[in-house]
Amino acid sequence: MSKLASEVLLLTMGDVCGIGPEVAAAALAAERDSRLCVVGDVQVMRRALQWAGVSMPVLRVEAPADWRDEADLPPRCLPVWQPEGLPGDLLQCPIGQVDARAGAAAAHCIEAAVRLIQDGGAAGLVTAPIHKEALHAAGVDFPGHTEMLQALASADSAPVPVRMMLANDELRTVLVTIHCSLRQAIEQINCPQVLETVRIAEAAMRRFGIAKPRIAVAGLNPHAGEGGLFGDEEVLHIAPAIALARAEGIDARGPFAPDTVFMRARNAPGHPGEFDLVVAMTHDHGLIPVKYLGVEQGVNVTLGLPFVRTSPDHGTAFDLAGTGRADPSSMRAAIRMARRLLA
Amino acid sequence: MSKLASEVLLLTMGDVCGIGPEVAAAALAAERDSRLCVVGDVQVMRRALQWAGVSMPVLRVEAPADWRDEADLPPRCLPVWQPEGLPGDLLQCPIGQVDARAGAAAAHCIEAAVRLIQDGGAAGLVTAPIHKEALHAAGVDFPGHTEMLQALASADSAPVPVRMMLANDELRTVLVTIHCSLRQAIEQINCPQVLETVRIAEAAMRRFGIAKPRIAVAGLNPHAGEGGLFGDEEVLHIAPAIALARAEGIDARGPFAPDTVFMRARNAPGHPGEFDLVVAMTHDHGLIPVKYLGVEQGVNVTLGLPFVRTSPDHGTAFDLAGTGRADPSSMRAAIRMARRLLA
Repeated sequence: MSKLASEVLLLTMGDVCGIGPEVAAAALAAERDSRLCVVGDVQVMRRALQWAGVSMPVLRVEAPADWRDEADLPPRCLPVWQPEGLPGDLLQCPIGQVDARAGAAAAHCIEAAVRLIQDGGAAGLVTAPIHKEALHAAGVDFPGHTEMLQALASADSAPVPVRMMLANDELRTVLVTIHCSLRQAIEQINCPQVLETVRIAEAAMRRFGIAKPRIAVAGLNPHAGEGGLFGDEEVLHIAPAIALARAEGIDARGPFAPDTVFMRARNAPGHPGEFDLVVAMTHDHGLIPVKYLGVEQGVNVTLGLPFVRTSPDHGTAFDLAGTGRADPSSMRAAIRMARRLLA
Repeated sequence: MSKLASEVLLLTMGDVCGIGPEVAAAALAAERDSRLCVVGDVQVMRRALQWAGVSMPVLRVEAPADWRDEADLPPRCLPVWQPEGLPGDLLQCPIGQVDARAGAAAAHCIEAAVRLIQDGGAAGLVTAPIHKEALHAAGVDFPGHTEMLQALASADSAPVPVRMMLANDELRTVLVTIHCSLRQAIEQINCPQVLETVRIAEAAMRRFGIAKPRIAVAGLNPHAGEGGLFGDEEVLHIAPAIALARAEGIDARGPFAPDTVFMRARNAPGHPGEFDLVVAMTHDHGLIPVKYLGVEQGVNVTLGLPFVRTSPDHGTAFDLAGTGRADPSSMRAAIRMARRLLA
């Protein structure tokens, strides 16, 4: 990979019927990061700039790693790499609605971006929100980016173990289970899965510059099972995984009661967090506290992939698309997080 | 019930090995509420006043509804009603440890307080924290106050349906399930249970002075089940309960995705809440957000009992007992909440 390519972050436009293109345009303009390049449709991005109130031309680039030379910094243009085979007429997709063309285009951009990264043409990925039903209408059946990226990264090999991390300025959490029913999540919790999550979380924290991360492992049950009285997953699976992680030198502690561990880990002015990260057993145990103070600063990071990938903490917000009221804060935070992870 | 008795709040001392007596003493002194009376051990409360740094004599009263006449307001004494049959030598119990005598005494005070309320001698109950293992050591097997109070209130009749509400200045949540494993909680979720919770929550909100409470009902599964893809409890049980509640005229909405509904209900300066209360399916879905910003202001309210009952949002904190560092804020908030509910 060229030096420049190793610095390039790709920003997929997401579902064109939602706020993805707008927040991508606004965030790119605001971040003034000359090594960012949108992967999307040139016309959609031109409209998105208007909606975002940004006065800036679109620059169609042939290769994201090359455009920098053509630009006059700080960015006076929005670089867009439009992958071959993107469906045409995307401006016809009805704003704020599920549309198969929009789903197909969103998936195509993600696939093209991953291929480009795998070919050494870029280093990392920031993704604008997609809509699961639109993907489904296009025949692409993944519950979210995380699973789709895992499949793309695993194409020719054994499945890559990935985990979802949600982070804001106060709290980081990594999830053992994500997009399945709570019943299935409970079935998926076992010692190897928890141990793998702790290992992935620890490696990520070191990448964040924390040499010896303090990792709290939340329990699954109320009061972390109260010694087996309220469920035995802590005794059977979680505590053994913590013991194994500690034997590997990882500073993992727990299992802690879910209702207080996030409060204890919260790192805010006047409230130093006791932990650098919380491993949560379920999607909502982890996401409720990260989102509680607002999704504006939340960033989703996929850990375990062979490349950096972040995204904002919100969805397509169909009701806001095209209104100019979409807030690019979370997208900006996602860009900064990805840049930090590439450094 | 006499007019005075109808205003009296009893404050059970909790486990004498924990911070209960201290925070009770400090809170009573600070609240200057002359219709409060501790139910506990005179000697323990004398020591607790010292530990709390409060210079005030203990006044042993024969009946909580009578003591007011003897006092010189604002309170210059700490009224303590010591129920007959309380174990002696409680000062001998080792601070910060599980002790059967402490468990027996805590249970005895709760039972005596409930009996007094049932006999018309007082109107409501604020409980200092107890320790489940100490109760167990004393042969009293309840996972918490809520279940014990339910049993005491149901002694001669069908079980009273009770629900746990957690509230702070920003958020109120009422739980469908509480002290059981997550697997059992899922089994307990059905349409009648959810509907009953919504009804109890609505009645409580009206008691709080909200004429037409806006009640959000959270889902159980990630994304509230994503239309049945991630679990069917929303479709089978929760949505029908919401429809039935709405047919009764209750403004219940949902099921909403658990990870964002609490953020939406949060009522803070610059962030008006969309709902007055969230009905949560599990202990930790509800308690994680209420506790996230700190337990200092959180109050636990038992809804459905034939009398008012509140408690602080924290436990016995054995590590803090006797250090003078226990924070009475949550106990003070519990007293104010009970007073408000009696009004």
